[in-house]
Amino acid sequence: MAQQEVQNGESEKAAVAVVFTAVKQQLLVEAPKANDAVAFYKAAFGAVELDRTTQPKRKAEQELPLILSAQLQLAGSTIIVADVEANSATTLKTGGSGCVLCLETEDVEAAVAKAVAAGAVAEGHITEGEEGACCGGRVGKLKDPYGFVWLICSPAKKCATAEA
Amino acid sequence: MAQQEVQNGESEKAAVAVVFTAVKQQLLVEAPKANDAVAFYKAAFGAVELDRTTQPKRKAEQELPLILSAQLQLAGSTIIVADVEANSATTLKTGGSGCVLCLETEDVEAAVAKAVAAGAVAEGHITEGEEGACCGGRVGKLKDPYGFVWLICSPAKKCATAEA
Repeated sequence: MAQQEVQNGESEKAAVAVVFTAVKQQLLVEAPKANDAVAFYKAAFGAVELDRTTQPKRKAEQELPLILSAQLQLAGSTIIVADVEANSATTLKTGGSGCVLCLETEDVEAAVAKAVAAGAVAEGHITEGEEGACCGGRVGKLKDPYGFVWLICSPAKKCATAEA
Repeated sequence: MAQQEVQNGESEKAAVAVVFTAVKQQLLVEAPKANDAVAFYKAAFGAVELDRTTQPKRKAEQELPLILSAQLQLAGSTIIVADVEANSATTLKTGGSGCVLCLETEDVEAAVAKAVAAGAVAEGHITEGEEGACCGGRVGKLKDPYGFVWLICSPAKKCATAEA
């Protein structure tokens, strides 16, 4: 759904009850340190890695595949660790804050529309999750009025290594 | 416990099994906008406010009491929203990232020691929670090697308005 369509439909969609099934903290780590970061969170906090999606296509001189999404279980919550390259669109969009909140819901469009009606700004279109961030089907990105970035995603599913 | 004591004891304490009972995302908002932010997260995402701790002493020209900690329930997780003044120690310590992860455990000292042994840097002493951030008894602050700030706190309890 294009951003324009979201905006056109926001008044009616804002009335829809949106159910979120999970909130996951995503930590964006300067590539390619996410692998080290995952090891650190295991050693420091006893985090358990549930799943990892990597980017198969890498430049020859880079040894480690970039981590698109490593899901860690910690104290009953899920934390996602991801590599982000310094000049990537993600880094620019998050303003270098390095942390993004993922909200899972079955109805990404309605959730984005409701948040936009409340004052969030949609960034780009709702996309199919090629980026692998949440490993879900559909992903919408929002910036809230206080500078935080939220990804609204359909629920995570076990997925094969993403095609980059 | 002083930082020096933590460092001296880290090798033996690193072997202790530390159990974390919750991880809470803390969003640091430029003061005094936390009140607006809480209203926004309710409207945008259906968050439910569980508890709020405010700072009673305010300058006369400031109308809103600063929010030390507003606990919001969202999709089964707790998110903490807090006012942070631009020139505060917290802002300086988090490097303006605006997001901090709170890990709750009954054994703050052991958790801090284990994380330090794994490569985190303890910032300051473990303190009794006057700052209200986690509304717990004891709070230790860590910076991990990837730039994220973690508060290791004893479990949150319902508390009266903190004395500033």
